[in-house]
Amino acid sequence: MTIPRTTATIAPPVMQARRWLDGVVHPADRPLLNVSQAAPTAPPPLALRQAIARSAMEDDAAHLYGPVLGLPALRAAVADRWTRLYGGAVAAGQVAITSGCNQAFAAAIASLCGEGDAVILAVPWYFNHAMWLDMAGVAAIPLQTGPDLLPDPDAAAALITARTRAIVLVTPNNPCGVAYPAATLRAFRDLCRAHRIALIVDETYRDFDARVGAPHDLFADASWDDTLIQLYSFSKAYRLTGHRVGTIATSPARLAEIEKFLDTVTICPNQLGQRAALWGMENLDDWLQGERSEIIARAAAIATHAAPLTAQGWQVLGCGAYFAYLRHPHPVASVELAERLVAEAGILCLPGTMFRPADDPAGARELRIAFANIDTGQIAELFDRLARWQP
Amino acid sequence: MTIPRTTATIAPPVMQARRWLDGVVHPADRPLLNVSQAAPTAPPPLALRQAIARSAMEDDAAHLYGPVLGLPALRAAVADRWTRLYGGAVAAGQVAITSGCNQAFAAAIASLCGEGDAVILAVPWYFNHAMWLDMAGVAAIPLQTGPDLLPDPDAAAALITARTRAIVLVTPNNPCGVAYPAATLRAFRDLCRAHRIALIVDETYRDFDARVGAPHDLFADASWDDTLIQLYSFSKAYRLTGHRVGTIATSPARLAEIEKFLDTVTICPNQLGQRAALWGMENLDDWLQGERSEIIARAAAIATHAAPLTAQGWQVLGCGAYFAYLRHPHPVASVELAERLVAEAGILCLPGTMFRPADDPAGARELRIAFANIDTGQIAELFDRLARWQP
Repeated sequence: MTIPRTTATIAPPVMQARRWLDGVVHPADRPLLNVSQAAPTAPPPLALRQAIARSAMEDDAAHLYGPVLGLPALRAAVADRWTRLYGGAVAAGQVAITSGCNQAFAAAIASLCGEGDAVILAVPWYFNHAMWLDMAGVAAIPLQTGPDLLPDPDAAAALITARTRAIVLVTPNNPCGVAYPAATLRAFRDLCRAHRIALIVDETYRDFDARVGAPHDLFADASWDDTLIQLYSFSKAYRLTGHRVGTIATSPARLAEIEKFLDTVTICPNQLGQRAALWGMENLDDWLQGERSEIIARAAAIATHAAPLTAQGWQVLGCGAYFAYLRHPHPVASVELAERLVAEAGILCLPGTMFRPADDPAGARELRIAFANIDTGQIAELFDRLARWQP
Repeated sequence: MTIPRTTATIAPPVMQARRWLDGVVHPADRPLLNVSQAAPTAPPPLALRQAIARSAMEDDAAHLYGPVLGLPALRAAVADRWTRLYGGAVAAGQVAITSGCNQAFAAAIASLCGEGDAVILAVPWYFNHAMWLDMAGVAAIPLQTGPDLLPDPDAAAALITARTRAIVLVTPNNPCGVAYPAATLRAFRDLCRAHRIALIVDETYRDFDARVGAPHDLFADASWDDTLIQLYSFSKAYRLTGHRVGTIATSPARLAEIEKFLDTVTICPNQLGQRAALWGMENLDDWLQGERSEIIARAAAIATHAAPLTAQGWQVLGCGAYFAYLRHPHPVASVELAERLVAEAGILCLPGTMFRPADDPAGARELRIAFANIDTGQIAELFDRLARWQP
């Protein structure tokens, strides 16, 4: 007796955590600090909202079906930007637009894997990646990382079998906040190419990388598209989470396969969201630099305000882009700790168990703090509350 | 060696047909009649465009993540409307919003089936249903229909095995245009319930049914949600194809499973599209009645203008909602005929082979005409061109 695909995976962690809020009343002098979801809570800047409204009024095509692989002008803009940013050559025909970056991942896997295949994910992993593999009948093979939370190509090599179809890396990492060195990515590319498997690199948080310049040179390789599948999202850069627009860069041949999946699941990405993303790329570079600076300042505030807690046994395992990944000192499993922190400290964060396989004990000691939504004052308050909380 | 999921299915038919247009120049006195895709080609009415623009400007939440299962107000509005329209009891907790109706189908299948299961589809079938089953590792079992294109419950019963998880019906039908009698749907519901499998009813074209009143009474059954999974789309009713908003009505327990799939594939339906659908439901009833009358007039024009072609051997197998399904008299396979009609008659339509399994010979004799986009004058012109074309 088979089980349905959805039965093979877990309930959505963010929705599960949101239910912990039910019935909890937060005192007026201690409002909830919600650091559970990696998402802007403010709307896009006014000029972008005006641009969306204008499209709705003036552009008939903004309401109608468009090409499965996305708006040609947006595909071209992404190709052009990637070419300049990474110092490589990316053509519009190597780019597709998707209904968010999760869909880009699902489509990539559908073009790579059949039932019983395997994909290697660095852990801690992004839960929706593991969930999609569960539902696709693909084994999610955890690649353990060391104390620096960086994946090791040699450790990955030891996990590759005849069923392996891809290795997945997220950089800057969700949930750990760690930005992978360019040399690490090159080593993984070489490993994947030698084994004729794909390297999927999810750069959803790229625009908030604290490093200056190109985060890697994978696109500078003339034959990048024989191995690399790169994913990106417009959700964080332009505060467009509610519009569901992401991208995938890979070979035209793979995009022809991916077109089958996208057509069948959504027909096309929504048109207004695509126009919003394009307008953002054309007009919001300076604004985005300001956003980036603010996020980098918040990451610095994490380091400052977490430091006093090391005496109590807290550790910041990783910090960058939208996330701090913490090890807690309490004799309480993280899932219980996270639920108790809602009522007892006014903090909603996610337990490390949500980012690891069910049989991995490390998650019970870890918490993810998605700090992008709270300012430096609230970051100070967050660590003050964590310092005072006792089991 | 497994093959990737996408390799298990065909290329998207609509995109394939669109490529037949490449390089073809249409004479000024014989412009293209594009009857390939079932989609409004005009934008939504001005008041709805204004409502979308207002949401973009005034509603912060229209740009942010929302609940995986959709905007609560829209779920409630659908439940309320369905309760009144069908004479039953549908609660908001039995409704979810999806990123278009194709996604609703994919999510339903993910909640029902694992690798190697089977689902019965009436043929001619909607190609994206068959494509999703191919990619999900589920056997698409064709249920042949008779000269009236109606599915027979006894014939379906003979196809049910231990692996069968659902029967799928589309009414009014795509590609055939036939609206199924309420008694047929009841008989299929009873059959599915007796076998403890699901009945999926896709009512994307419901608002253009020529019959008056509720198209069926499945929701009047107090325990409807133990068997029925009903799908619907806002794309056609309010000309919102580019916004990707559909619905699924089923049990709360199944929606909890479906939530896993939707979260992993798209996180949430896009927010502006959901607001547009809600505004349409609240304000466009009269307008939609006008749209329906126009479509019914076009269907009548099909009957009138197709009649003279019967002498040449053409047959209208089915006609209603957005579609006419024709049998052609030519000694040419429909896929070749459809491609030649582009250059030789200025007509883009889809061959019947796109709506049947590869080994079904009937498709070679059939064409689908998606007539919703052409007015009665163009319908006369369409049949005039078909009458004059010779191989």
